[in-house]
Amino acid sequence: MSGDAYLQVHRLAEIEHLKIHGRTTGGLDPVTLFWTGSAIELNVQASGLWIEVESGYDQYESWISILINSVPVSRQMLNAGRHWICVFRGMNLDTVKNIRIVKEVQAMSGDPGCYLQFHAVRTDGAFLPVEAKPYRLEFIGDSITSGEGVIGAREELDWIPAWFSGVHNYTAMTADAVQAEYRVISQSGWGVLTSWDNNPKGNLPDIYEQVCGLLTGERNEALGAHKENDFESWQPDVVVVNLGTNDNGAFHSPEWVDEGTGQRYKQRLKEDGSYHEDDLAAFEAAVVKFLGKLRRYNNTAHILWAYGMLGIPLMPAIYRAVDAYIQSTGDKKVSVFQLPDMTDETAGARTHPGLLAHQQTARELSGYIKGLLSGS
Amino acid sequence: MSGDAYLQVHRLAEIEHLKIHGRTTGGLDPVTLFWTGSAIELNVQASGLWIEVESGYDQYESWISILINSVPVSRQMLNAGRHWICVFRGMNLDTVKNIRIVKEVQAMSGDPGCYLQFHAVRTDGAFLPVEAKPYRLEFIGDSITSGEGVIGAREELDWIPAWFSGVHNYTAMTADAVQAEYRVISQSGWGVLTSWDNNPKGNLPDIYEQVCGLLTGERNEALGAHKENDFESWQPDVVVVNLGTNDNGAFHSPEWVDEGTGQRYKQRLKEDGSYHEDDLAAFEAAVVKFLGKLRRYNNTAHILWAYGMLGIPLMPAIYRAVDAYIQSTGDKKVSVFQLPDMTDETAGARTHPGLLAHQQTARELSGYIKGLLSGS
Amino acid sequence: MSGDAYLQVHRLAEIEHLKIHGRTTGGLDPVTLFWTGSAIELNVQASGLWIEVESGYDQYESWISILINSVPVSRQMLNAGRHWICVFRGMNLDTVKNIRIVKEVQAMSGDPGCYLQFHAVRTDGAFLPVEAKPYRLEFIGDSITSGEGVIGAREELDWIPAWFSGVHNYTAMTADAVQAEYRVISQSGWGVLTSWDNNPKGNLPDIYEQVCGLLTGERNEALGAHKENDFESWQPDVVVVNLGTNDNGAFHSPEWVDEGTGQRYKQRLKEDGSYHEDDLAAFEAAVVKFLGKLRRYNNTAHILWAYGMLGIPLMPAIYRAVDAYIQSTGDKKVSVFQLPDMTDETAGARTHPGLLAHQQTARELSGYIKGLLSGS
Amino acid sequence: MSGDAYLQVHRLAEIEHLKIHGRTTGGLDPVTLFWTGSAIELNVQASGLWIEVESGYDQYESWISILINSVPVSRQMLNAGRHWICVFRGMNLDTVKNIRIVKEVQAMSGDPGCYLQFHAVRTDGAFLPVEAKPYRLEFIGDSITSGEGVIGAREELDWIPAWFSGVHNYTAMTADAVQAEYRVISQSGWGVLTSWDNNPKGNLPDIYEQVCGLLTGERNEALGAHKENDFESWQPDVVVVNLGTNDNGAFHSPEWVDEGTGQRYKQRLKEDGSYHEDDLAAFEAAVVKFLGKLRRYNNTAHILWAYGMLGIPLMPAIYRAVDAYIQSTGDKKVSVFQLPDMTDETAGARTHPGLLAHQQTARELSGYIKGLLSGS
Repeated sequence: MSGDAYLQVHRLAEIEHLKIHGRTTGGLDPVTLFWTGSAIELNVQASGLWIEVESGYDQYESWISILINSVPVSRQMLNAGRHWICVFRGMNLDTVKNIRIVKEVQAMSGDPGCYLQFHAVRTDGAFLPVEAKPYRLEFIGDSITSGEGVIGAREELDWIPAWFSGVHNYTAMTADAVQAEYRVISQSGWGVLTSWDNNPKGNLPDIYEQVCGLLTGERNEALGAHKENDFESWQPDVVVVNLGTNDNGAFHSPEWVDEGTGQRYKQRLKEDGSYHEDDLAAFEAAVVKFLGKLRRYNNTAHILWAYGMLGIPLMPAIYRAVDAYIQSTGDKKVSVFQLPDMTDETAGARTHPGLLAHQQTARELSGYIKGLLSGS
Repeated sequence: MSGDAYLQVHRLAEIEHLKIHGRTTGGLDPVTLFWTGSAIELNVQASGLWIEVESGYDQYESWISILINSVPVSRQMLNAGRHWICVFRGMNLDTVKNIRIVKEVQAMSGDPGCYLQFHAVRTDGAFLPVEAKPYRLEFIGDSITSGEGVIGAREELDWIPAWFSGVHNYTAMTADAVQAEYRVISQSGWGVLTSWDNNPKGNLPDIYEQVCGLLTGERNEALGAHKENDFESWQPDVVVVNLGTNDNGAFHSPEWVDEGTGQRYKQRLKEDGSYHEDDLAAFEAAVVKFLGKLRRYNNTAHILWAYGMLGIPLMPAIYRAVDAYIQSTGDKKVSVFQLPDMTDETAGARTHPGLLAHQQTARELSGYIKGLLSGS
Repeated sequence: MSGDAYLQVHRLAEIEHLKIHGRTTGGLDPVTLFWTGSAIELNVQASGLWIEVESGYDQYESWISILINSVPVSRQMLNAGRHWICVFRGMNLDTVKNIRIVKEVQAMSGDPGCYLQFHAVRTDGAFLPVEAKPYRLEFIGDSITSGEGVIGAREELDWIPAWFSGVHNYTAMTADAVQAEYRVISQSGWGVLTSWDNNPKGNLPDIYEQVCGLLTGERNEALGAHKENDFESWQPDVVVVNLGTNDNGAFHSPEWVDEGTGQRYKQRLKEDGSYHEDDLAAFEAAVVKFLGKLRRYNNTAHILWAYGMLGIPLMPAIYRAVDAYIQSTGDKKVSVFQLPDMTDETAGARTHPGLLAHQQTARELSGYIKGLLSGS
Repeated sequence: MSGDAYLQVHRLAEIEHLKIHGRTTGGLDPVTLFWTGSAIELNVQASGLWIEVESGYDQYESWISILINSVPVSRQMLNAGRHWICVFRGMNLDTVKNIRIVKEVQAMSGDPGCYLQFHAVRTDGAFLPVEAKPYRLEFIGDSITSGEGVIGAREELDWIPAWFSGVHNYTAMTADAVQAEYRVISQSGWGVLTSWDNNPKGNLPDIYEQVCGLLTGERNEALGAHKENDFESWQPDVVVVNLGTNDNGAFHSPEWVDEGTGQRYKQRLKEDGSYHEDDLAAFEAAVVKFLGKLRRYNNTAHILWAYGMLGIPLMPAIYRAVDAYIQSTGDKKVSVFQLPDMTDETAGARTHPGLLAHQQTARELSGYIKGLLSGS
């Protein structure tokens, strides 16, 4: 920190105008971010700002992006340990900068050692209020919503955090287009009923009510990942559920065997290649059940099932399930929206949607959501 | 470096297939990079790679971008000191990755304490040859060529390294489009004759033959910045000179007073707003002289004066000077090309060309250069 | 025809390699075209070509576009009467030109006097075979599919043929993208069950099996518009049904009174603004019934309900109806696809989709249809 | 004109608010249009409008486009003879429509029989004033400016009027972007000094002062094509000269022999492929001379030499000539602007600039002209 020694440390817990995006336990000393797209936001009138970050992992390291006045300026891997990172320096002391430090990578269900925390900032300036945006969106999804493959060359095949992005993501772009704050709950490979490989534990609904229920390990437990989320403190206007892609994958993947019980799980195809009726019904029941849970925790939100960036094979089942939910509950603030399919031109790394696919989705999805927001 | 302790250190000087882009002194232990767009390139068959970087500054810190298989994955400010930075980890050990670590910021004539070095890498893999590209380009320019304003919001006014980019730059894009390696010699505010504020020392020609002659301070002296560049080792096919924008600025800026001698310098406008003939002639003479110097050091290159991203007021003078050079020397491998003007839609930060302007310039300039390369 | 007097007349009925697009009665002397996008296609090795057209109307005149080697070269209104129109002249006698004369305007249910015929051509050359394309598409739709509003300024409000286009239309673009011949059955304002104003006669299903059953008047009767279409001679690979937009309109429009019987027709909304269950069920029944009719006449085609260019309010009902049809018949070659919604940027005249909206729809729809064609 | 018999004929000479674009002799009964982009413009409050056109040709027929409220609605070849063409019908009687009937094809120096006239209109409505635009542009050019190749498939090789467009042309787009009325003086194959085949009569400067001096034949003589143009009645703000492409062609084409005198004409290349100094000097002298003539007839206009859509080989000579003109006259309202080169992606028919090339040129050229107009 040569030349910046005059800066003064503020613990995050002491900053009145600190804004935190994404689910947290409420703890501020330090602030732990769990989900992709989660962020710390500050309006700071200063010539420089550093932030003290703490990161750990066994396998999958964390990445952050730094946005200054809404423009991504830096993107970096975080080494393990506790470090001071310079956000900006040498700027006009009198100008107010809007700063966002954004988690670029999803919560890692597969790495109990992965965590990301922010302790403090150092600055020569003062903090100002961050204006709230008029709307709030929540996105629930899988690898698509985690931005897997947005970064990286098309030929990349490794499953590593570097290829994920929370910033260059349809969630962030959609929220920006409709002037909304947003949260993301997502996990690569997971679905409504099972994960792509038929693992019944790989479903988002079961962990929805916890702060970040898919994390494992003692440290995450201690950090409060399994605590009940405080839904009252942040109620979305629209909940976007982008799930189903991995539930379809399960029909085309081998069975999953529970090593403890020996029980076998498999979403079956029939000989003619169509979905087995019983297993399709199980998927639809899971959708109906998840809608019920979402409504319990989000009383007034419009719930939007948005699906299609990697094909629409389960769309009829999703429409049936949403219909069944509406018929049985009378709840009419639920609808379905088809997202544009990725093409050769819009693909990214790991045969996942690339930047162009996320941009196209954001354009179409934000158009639909604007209609919902203006009509409600 | 948790989990990566098994990696083995290689000093850069020991790596047979290390490729360095940009002018250097030839020293490899460590490698010092001076100019924007300079880079270290490796083809590495490994699961992980770290690089040991050393950075210092009094005022203007260095930034680097990391490209994996030609895609920018990370961009970060470098703290002062010597650090290990992780380039990638957790990848397939058998796959060969092309890695470029690129200097994002120009050589800093205003900060004698600014330097950037690379000492070593740590990896579990092996290095393979990097294939040479069929062509070589050299770009000589000012803030435009330094990529000032490519990064950052439009309202940004601070002159800080964060807003510069060597990667998202017409130089890199043009080189890519014509399949060329490239080097950049550039400095914000400088011109052919004087800098924008009439300082006669702010000219690129005078320092052209040194490795990085605009750097000051003992450390840079010791690093060899003022040594004669080894032109024989790297002869470009095309030298692109994008200068003149600041020479025009000098006509519209106050005089510059040499504090040592008291001498005053000023490129004058006449009362009707047109250029004073004598001062315009001085500019043209500087162009002619620079062309002569460029030819001395680049015997076979096509020399291309490319100008226009921020207007073309000096274009008639540039054409006259190039004509005069050709007439007096018979050297016909010299030409002029007008670059597309920045518009409201393509502007970036600090009223400099933004990403869209650099892309448009690269499209048009690479088209012209392809014609030169195929015709020569 | 000055200077072109040496050309020789060929009646269309005499031309071996004449290709006709769109439903006809089979009559060739003259050829009568009914639907938008219908066309005469010729490969002609000649220096010039004229075509003898006959057009009539009481209110809505016909328009044609001329495509030379797939590029639209001319677009014109047809005056009433019988005229020779020059298609091209002054070209190289030895070169083969692909010529399409395309009907730009839909069949006009509201004008019994409207008809379009082609009698003969004059040329100095010879006709060559027109190669068949690998696929066939049929589109059934309303004003969107008729290309209403593709031509004309946004402020245009008149309902006139000039604003329609069969060439600059998602149907033509989609067919082109998947290498298919195509036919269009469409009528502005019409739906599956009723027209936008609740008229039960304004439905496409009832007239589907006739060559052009929505035409009225003695002349059209005599021209064979009400004859049963020869389905065996042209079986599509995919039938695209883009209907529902006017069925939704009926819910929001006043009742329609049959002046003969005094009977009143109205698709009702409930007080809370939602669809009346009985009327929605009637719409769904109409969809199911139409699917059954389409399957009877198109034994092997994939039937695709494509909907959404002006919103998706009836999408749940369409999915339910398609589901019900599949459940009751076991017919699995039926699916639903959501089309991208028109935006402010993509709108054309008369608040209908403009050229950009048709292009976007064609991109997304052709992507989906390619999947169908490769998978079947 | 079935159904339109109630319309009333107005001879053009009787219409107070008739606006004519492009050079004419002033005659109104009929109005003769000579150059591409010339037009008749009317604001008419009517339900319908027909126009009586007269067209003749020996070889090259005329084409027109009809614009309604600035949108091209129809484009058609004109048969020889005198015909009524319907412009619009069936529209709201109360609405005012802006109508432009635009000549799509250049004046034809090679066809003494080619002419285009408008006699009268028929309408049920009234004419209103057409508001003048704030600026005026004049374009002088060759095939590029005549829009050759904008229409038609890339493989087209025939030189026929069908491939020309005055509407889809950088001239029209540039004028629209800067809110200007405009005129075009252009001829395929012609240059400043000679045509592409060294014919010294193929130069625009010699015929500049006549209404349309390149036309031949008794009829055109009688129509006043060779009368001195009335420059006082229409003074442009900017004269854009896009010439030089064919002058370069002359250096690469065989000599032209005057069959009358036996004199031979040839712009020569030297053995090393460079321009012969004497012939290049002749070209430059022709530029200087033309600038002088342009200034005589356009006292206050900025004269802009714009060149580059098919390469810039003569740009140094153009700059030298413009410089020489400025030095010898002191006239400073003259400048040079490089136009963007056509690429594989932007090419049209006959290896001429296509629609995308004209759009790109219009974007860049209008940006430069806006600077001229705001600065003067």
